[in-house]
Amino acid sequence: MAKTPAKPKAGQPAQDPQAAPRTEIGSIGEFPLIDRLTADLPIHNADYTCKGVGDDAAVLQLPKGEKLLVSKDLLCEGVHFDMTYCPLRHLGYKAVAVNLSDIAAMNGTPRQVLVGIAASNRYSVEALEELYTGIRLACDRYHVDLVGGDTTSSAAGLFISVTVLGSAKPEDICYREGAKEHDLICVSGDLGGAYAGLLLLEREKRTFLSNPNAQPDFQDFSYVLERQLKPEPRTDIVKLLAEKGVKPTSMIDISDGLSSELLHLCERSHCGCMVYDNKIPIDAETCKALDIFDIVPTTAALNGGEDYELLFTIGQKDYEKLKDCPEIHIIGHIVEAAQGCYMVPENGPMMRLEAQGFDGFKQR
Amino acid sequence: MAKTPAKPKAGQPAQDPQAAPRTEIGSIGEFPLIDRLTADLPIHNADYTCKGVGDDAAVLQLPKGEKLLVSKDLLCEGVHFDMTYCPLRHLGYKAVAVNLSDIAAMNGTPRQVLVGIAASNRYSVEALEELYTGIRLACDRYHVDLVGGDTTSSAAGLFISVTVLGSAKPEDICYREGAKEHDLICVSGDLGGAYAGLLLLEREKRTFLSNPNAQPDFQDFSYVLERQLKPEPRTDIVKLLAEKGVKPTSMIDISDGLSSELLHLCERSHCGCMVYDNKIPIDAETCKALDIFDIVPTTAALNGGEDYELLFTIGQKDYEKLKDCPEIHIIGHIVEAAQGCYMVPENGPMMRLEAQGFDGFKQR
Repeated sequence: MAKTPAKPKAGQPAQDPQAAPRTEIGSIGEFPLIDRLTADLPIHNADYTCKGVGDDAAVLQLPKGEKLLVSKDLLCEGVHFDMTYCPLRHLGYKAVAVNLSDIAAMNGTPRQVLVGIAASNRYSVEALEELYTGIRLACDRYHVDLVGGDTTSSAAGLFISVTVLGSAKPEDICYREGAKEHDLICVSGDLGGAYAGLLLLEREKRTFLSNPNAQPDFQDFSYVLERQLKPEPRTDIVKLLAEKGVKPTSMIDISDGLSSELLHLCERSHCGCMVYDNKIPIDAETCKALDIFDIVPTTAALNGGEDYELLFTIGQKDYEKLKDCPEIHIIGHIVEAAQGCYMVPENGPMMRLEAQGFDGFKQR
Repeated sequence: MAKTPAKPKAGQPAQDPQAAPRTEIGSIGEFPLIDRLTADLPIHNADYTCKGVGDDAAVLQLPKGEKLLVSKDLLCEGVHFDMTYCPLRHLGYKAVAVNLSDIAAMNGTPRQVLVGIAASNRYSVEALEELYTGIRLACDRYHVDLVGGDTTSSAAGLFISVTVLGSAKPEDICYREGAKEHDLICVSGDLGGAYAGLLLLEREKRTFLSNPNAQPDFQDFSYVLERQLKPEPRTDIVKLLAEKGVKPTSMIDISDGLSSELLHLCERSHCGCMVYDNKIPIDAETCKALDIFDIVPTTAALNGGEDYELLFTIGQKDYEKLKDCPEIHIIGHIVEAAQGCYMVPENGPMMRLEAQGFDGFKQR
């Protein structure tokens, strides 16, 4: 994907919501705040968006023959992000990106988002503007219209709730079910990077907490930091599949780690899987970062979350169409349910896959 | 509207999220929790809902010639609700109801909701089930499909984010703009009740905090308590308007008080208004409750929030069609912008309307 010059850079110092200039949210009121945050919003999808922000509801339309896709995700401070190292602009970008990923996972095209924000009085108007800068960047980059939302105060912390709407022709929609025996299992991009980035950020947080004058040491790790702080939804893969004339037999996005998502897909498709350790795509920088923490790269790929790559299955007949796509990796194949879900290492015995992925409710 | 026997009753003791039996959310994990909360969801709108909960996104469709309406609202503990006196079942019901009201305010019909919940570990699985019982009651009562959402943990407090989708024929959709000079200003139901209920609940909270053995004194105030704890969206008014063949020239729902919403509507329609004190509908029980607190009923109607009635304007030609509807009250008329926005009391000088309504960011 082409990089836009206005993109936020990972690894820059976290925003200080207390930093000057500071306008208290309570001093301007809800409606002027919303006006300020949503001024001059562009419409990228005029065929889909009739009326955006500014009334009791947005008014949208769906071209004939298309279905509507809708999903929502909540990001909570202290659970999904840490303000110590997560710049507000990245956070806004990520909140939109992870939602767009859900539409990509249906083999659809995202069209609109609605953003709800609840912020404590620790956050200023300027802080929310910074958050919205990231939200707008993601919307512009992915040609998605911001059509509504809600901005309110919270008793403590920052909460970002994004709803995404997308569209697809009914015959193109991919569900989690649908994988069949002998289908090939594919992943886009590479895995484990977001988790490696998180480990680095957590390490620097500990250093910072013990010595607030310490400068963060992120040299040579810009890729894994971007993977954690600013994931990109793989809408490009959806386009590529359409260009190649391939419809996956099943698809899901990888938010909780490859292992957890493979198990989901197999459970829903009533099948098993066999994936090969040496086929799982992992970036060299990810391996280098994980090495610092003595973590085996495959473990991070299987159980680290937030890569937001696509996991999908294709019929064997489509192998030739995708085998030369550098962004798509065939990591295994579907077997019958009775055979279970296993990873095959280069050396050593087969390993049963277990869901140890990220879970918002479990201790991390 | 017919009352369903399963409706929660206002004024019952608030749920204690610590009450036994108690299953820790962390003990069952996110996916089993979502399965438990969303088991056996009915589909009320098969023409609109293709696939609900269970994949990366819900799949919906829109019958030919209809537009999609979408809106979202966030409710935050300690800001929009107080767990001291807000039963979880009512809270779930209200979270859905206030969103449905936004679709009614566009003169549309709600079809689906998505619910995002972030809860701290103070909340048990049983507490979330109670919340979902209210969510399901509202969905069943208003024939709306629960098609998706997100359930996660929060560092502190309970956050409920609801997205509502609805539909309308394009020619039926009402915006905030559109009111014209000489149009009649109408409100549904009655006003000020939700604020009166809030005052009573806050009073009983203070009593309870100073004497935990005190029993709440809510005798004779079940109506205003229901107005606060369990508002009903006026989808019945949308149906009535269609039956009578009336399309409002502008419409908004009253969430922040009549005054604030009238100013909104006039600002967006580039007009002024003249409303008559003695025409504003206020229930006798509301007056009785407000009397305890020495509050003039009109003040509560103008500035108290959360009534979720509809405020709309109609052309004079439609007067005959609505004049005998007991749930619709004509409270004034639209004037040109230069004349401003005023309330005319029975005695005394005209009063300029000011927006002092509920505002999530201002001190209450």
